[in-house]
Amino acid sequence: MIHITRRERFNAAHRLFRHDFTDEQNIEVFGKCSNPNWHGHNYELYITVKGNINEMTGFLINLKTLSDAIKQYVINKLDHKNINIEVDFMQGKLASTENLAVGIWEELQQRIHDLGAELHCVKVIESENNYVEYFGK
Amino acid sequence: MIHITRRERFNAAHRLFRHDFTDEQNIEVFGKCSNPNWHGHNYELYITVKGNINEMTGFLINLKTLSDAIKQYVINKLDHKNINIEVDFMQGKLASTENLAVGIWEELQQRIHDLGAELHCVKVIESENNYVEYFGK
Amino acid sequence: MIHITRRERFNAAHRLFRHDFTDEQNIEVFGKCSNPNWHGHNYELYITVKGNINEMTGFLINLKTLSDAIKQYVINKLDHKNINIEVDFMQGKLASTENLAVGIWEELQQRIHDLGAELHCVKVIESENNYVEYFGK
Amino acid sequence: MIHITRRERFNAAHRLFRHDFTDEQNIEVFGKCSNPNWHGHNYELYITVKGNINEMTGFLINLKTLSDAIKQYVINKLDHKNINIEVDFMQGKLASTENLAVGIWEELQQRIHDLGAELHCVKVIESENNYVEYFGK
Amino acid sequence: MIHITRRERFNAAHRLFRHDFTDEQNIEVFGKCSNPNWHGHNYELYITVKGNINEMTGFLINLKTLSDAIKQYVINKLDHKNINIEVDFMQGKLASTENLAVGIWEELQQRIHDLGAELHCVKVIESENNYVEYFGK
Amino acid sequence: MIHITRRERFNAAHRLFRHDFTDEQNIEVFGKCSNPNWHGHNYELYITVKGNINEMTGFLINLKTLSDAIKQYVINKLDHKNINIEVDFMQGKLASTENLAVGIWEELQQRIHDLGAELHCVKVIESENNYVEYFGK
Repeated sequence: MIHITRRERFNAAHRLFRHDFTDEQNIEVFGKCSNPNWHGHNYELYITVKGNINEMTGFLINLKTLSDAIKQYVINKLDHKNINIEVDFMQGKLASTENLAVGIWEELQQRIHDLGAELHCVKVIESENNYVEYFGK
Repeated sequence: MIHITRRERFNAAHRLFRHDFTDEQNIEVFGKCSNPNWHGHNYELYITVKGNINEMTGFLINLKTLSDAIKQYVINKLDHKNINIEVDFMQGKLASTENLAVGIWEELQQRIHDLGAELHCVKVIESENNYVEYFGK
Repeated sequence: MIHITRRERFNAAHRLFRHDFTDEQNIEVFGKCSNPNWHGHNYELYITVKGNINEMTGFLINLKTLSDAIKQYVINKLDHKNINIEVDFMQGKLASTENLAVGIWEELQQRIHDLGAELHCVKVIESENNYVEYFGK
Repeated sequence: MIHITRRERFNAAHRLFRHDFTDEQNIEVFGKCSNPNWHGHNYELYITVKGNINEMTGFLINLKTLSDAIKQYVINKLDHKNINIEVDFMQGKLASTENLAVGIWEELQQRIHDLGAELHCVKVIESENNYVEYFGK
Repeated sequence: MIHITRRERFNAAHRLFRHDFTDEQNIEVFGKCSNPNWHGHNYELYITVKGNINEMTGFLINLKTLSDAIKQYVINKLDHKNINIEVDFMQGKLASTENLAVGIWEELQQRIHDLGAELHCVKVIESENNYVEYFGK
Repeated sequence: MIHITRRERFNAAHRLFRHDFTDEQNIEVFGKCSNPNWHGHNYELYITVKGNINEMTGFLINLKTLSDAIKQYVINKLDHKNINIEVDFMQGKLASTENLAVGIWEELQQRIHDLGAELHCVKVIESENNYVEYFGK
């Protein structure tokens, strides 16, 4: 059993707020992250998969295949997008880093299984001071 | 003559586009950066000032004073804001990194002079692959 | 169950030595880290907590609350301080990175529990080449 | 139980290919990594060991001792070398990052045990976008 | 006048040696960098160009255009290649970082001029401890 | 003319204060950096030298020779030391980053000239947010 991690990046806008909160409540709970005019981040995404080494290739998984899947199912939906408005798997959810990590897990788990590896961890770095990890349970 | 540099950071949303362009023209010139729903970045700002060392303190400038000025005149206007809509010194300008660096220079040059140092360089890092430097001329 | 990590930083002086060792013994065991005139580091502290996502906020824990707790109980005691002399929770202990990680765990575990999350890992980076992790058992 | 990690670095050349593949097959499976004239990397190696803190020293293990062992048994064999041709513990194996991590584990596990700690993880970073971790099982 | 910098990366093998030196002379002058079986690096390339901001776009130069030119004329020749054997603009030269920076300058200067900007600096980072800058004179 | 930069690192303790100030004055001017029990940093030192490429070696200067000189004349005096008490070239000076950069310049300028290159810049990074550069005039 070996673990391999691929980093991909995306730049996106978001806003933390609830429709059923007043502006004052949104500011109290979400602070400046609730700015109605949005703000954004350079997100870094680390996808860790696990499995056995294929003896013929020396690979757990071909990294180009893994990178292409992450781009197709996740990065293309998020990069240079508004997470609240434009990302299908985030509709109806608060655009927090926690929910984003869970949403990315759900987009990737089956697809990575189909590629012959198991998804182990989705790590989303929002800033140099904050990151979230989700292990699927 | 010595140079000292202070880093500050801000997270903001922006969009590259012209009102007098069609959507197709905006996409042709600005690509995915013209997304009407915005995107954003973790910007890093490096402010370099120059001058002589004060013999009594060993400082060119007190870094807390420099940091406070950068925060008051620049970071507070940009952090968790929409550069196109909410930043006074960017009104009427394209929200490019180049224009942002020039705008920050104009906000800071006189203020740093008043603190006893000279502004030497404004460096704005938009992503790990791109940055702009402006030396004021 | 999700994991979220907050980074905080502190700059401190320390010295590795035992009172019951001769200078020669201290140098033999601790090398240049036993310099009687102290040396210091830019320490990076990564605090990882775990728990469930609050459906109302999308947060595991409000990061400002977490950051404030880390600052109040840990950073304010360590930053610009001498770890051997001035840090209450390190009294009577060797000022090693290992003991520092355990000491920080003991300062934070109950407080983070009271904030509704569980402390998962204390990671202390002493230099780009060395770090310690403590998981509380 | 505490975990401590030491980083070491090495620069090496390698090539991904199989002798029993045609050039076309090698390119299909390994892409540009199969270039017959080699390419190379600045590899970063993170060795994590675990164990109890020695009360006399405050250390899990003396980091100089750990660093010396990593250099003697691993870095000296890899640094400024060709992984395919010159590294004894990689003979007969595909020079993938996965196999490299397993090979380094086998070089170090018993030696670190003899130093009084247990090897926990071998992490090999091949580029800023890719890394492999091996936990020995 | 503004400066903008684009980072690109390449992984390559090389060897420092002279055909007219004995092995002993090569080791004396070039040390382990003269290993006949090659070694390699993750090189980082920072290309800084300067010029005026285009008022219609807010750009000094379209970064995609700049990136494409760097890839076409430099990265595609170097990435996953052997610098001594396979890179046309390095033929007949010692494969030092200094010569590499000068060679990249010569590949790019006219092409960037044709794109409407002026090449200001070629910076080649060979490792976290070493880099070379060339300003063309 | 080419520029080459070598990074070296040192960990040191220091304190910013004046003997002719009261404790209150020291705190007012130097803040927490005046703590009488010291604090410390992981300093990074970037030494940039310039000159012509030696046609026989492809080098401006042998980096091992440059590194050895920096270690002998600067790093060995600073690493794991107290800058105020133990560093000969800082005696009688405030232990600010500015004065440190000037002091390192004076230690190295003639020695690097004797090695056949010219010192161009001394850059001292005190933290990820602050650095000083000195160009010798």
